[in-house]
Amino acid sequence: MTQRILLMSSSRKDNLGYLEHAGEQIHTLLRHEPRKVLFVPFAGVTFSFDTYEGMVRPVFEKLGYALQSIHHSADPLRAVQQADAIAVGGGNTFALLKRLYDAGIVDAIRTKVRAGTPYVGWSAGSNVACPTIRTTNDMPIVQPPSLRALGLVPFQINPHFISGKPAGHNGESREERLAEFLHINAPEQVFALPEGSALYSDGTTGTVLGERHALWFPAEGQVETIREGEAFALSQITGPAGMQDWPGFAV
Amino acid sequence: MTQRILLMSSSRKDNLGYLEHAGEQIHTLLRHEPRKVLFVPFAGVTFSFDTYEGMVRPVFEKLGYALQSIHHSADPLRAVQQADAIAVGGGNTFALLKRLYDAGIVDAIRTKVRAGTPYVGWSAGSNVACPTIRTTNDMPIVQPPSLRALGLVPFQINPHFISGKPAGHNGESREERLAEFLHINAPEQVFALPEGSALYSDGTTGTVLGERHALWFPAEGQVETIREGEAFALSQITGPAGMQDWPGFAV
Repeated sequence: MTQRILLMSSSRKDNLGYLEHAGEQIHTLLRHEPRKVLFVPFAGVTFSFDTYEGMVRPVFEKLGYALQSIHHSADPLRAVQQADAIAVGGGNTFALLKRLYDAGIVDAIRTKVRAGTPYVGWSAGSNVACPTIRTTNDMPIVQPPSLRALGLVPFQINPHFISGKPAGHNGESREERLAEFLHINAPEQVFALPEGSALYSDGTTGTVLGERHALWFPAEGQVETIREGEAFALSQITGPAGMQDWPGFAV
Repeated sequence: MTQRILLMSSSRKDNLGYLEHAGEQIHTLLRHEPRKVLFVPFAGVTFSFDTYEGMVRPVFEKLGYALQSIHHSADPLRAVQQADAIAVGGGNTFALLKRLYDAGIVDAIRTKVRAGTPYVGWSAGSNVACPTIRTTNDMPIVQPPSLRALGLVPFQINPHFISGKPAGHNGESREERLAEFLHINAPEQVFALPEGSALYSDGTTGTVLGERHALWFPAEGQVETIREGEAFALSQITGPAGMQDWPGFAV
């Protein structure tokens, strides 16, 4: 079964407006088809879901796609099962994952997307598409029941990737944080996406979108640049043990 | 019962060596008494516990205190119960808390320190001294059984505090992350410590150490600077519900 999964680093690139850089990437996923997108605003914390929907809907409508937020639905599970496409926005990854579990839609989204429904996530919405949220940059402001997430792809994404650390600051750099992840979780792998970059997966092959490319960390101490348009086989990526047995993963 | 708890932001300040800025702060805690310090190196990930002990022991010995790491002990629970003082180093907060639970010493450290044994933590070692690790800056590379931590103080620490974000980067600033925490977890409160700053608690009063002061976030949208030497009453800080019933908390 062909899958259609777009994982974007960020909602903003440089000084462009909200998702302004992302039009062609979204068209790569949705192919100008008349799809109605189900939006999941659960990563928003300090503003309302209505406000969040009001930021995202005009972007998708301008591109030719209808969009409605799941928070209007009395039956979120049914909304997922009937969706033409699913979009999950950025914000706080821990709040997002907790609310996905609270709504009881984690397995349903995995089942739907692995069966072919297009999925687009950005920032936290890309983190939750991974096997776990263990490579998020966000603060763990709430505790989800598990760090296990949607598992739409077998690798981890690190969004908003930026090299190094501020001058004079002694906290860990992003590379040091990812080295810790790789050290303790081998053979799991990480793709780091600078702002504006994205990964597209059809279930068999991954492709990098965006002129800033991606960094592939296959193991601690190893890093390769994957350039725009470059494809890689998903079969070479080892996910967490037992992942193929998660509900909805095998299609 | 008087408690003695020192929570430092960082192991380094500017370009000074490891804990080089911290000598007077450590003397404030240990008072030149002949105490043998039990060191907990569990936050270290990409280097060995022996290596970590080798970095920390000379600092304490130069200040006049003996130090041995808990990883040499066949019975870590007994080591905690017999400690003259406890020092918990920085690194990855999630790895640290998971290993504290794996070793079965979370409740024992709380009981010991709340009963008067001096505790010093820096960075991740300050995060785990709080009610939970929900204000750590670290990547959640492993999953502890809970985000609940030692709860030596009723407030949250944000170590390595730095204002704003890198130019041209669109991830959340530290202030935005803390606003998310405060929004979703009111009435809990946060003290943000710039590198070099520390908080000292005697169980009744908190005092800020270090010339860079601290920022107190009593609620979302509120912030006050607490200056070096300035004291505040711990009784005005509300911890998580039920905290007073945690094993060892009430003394």
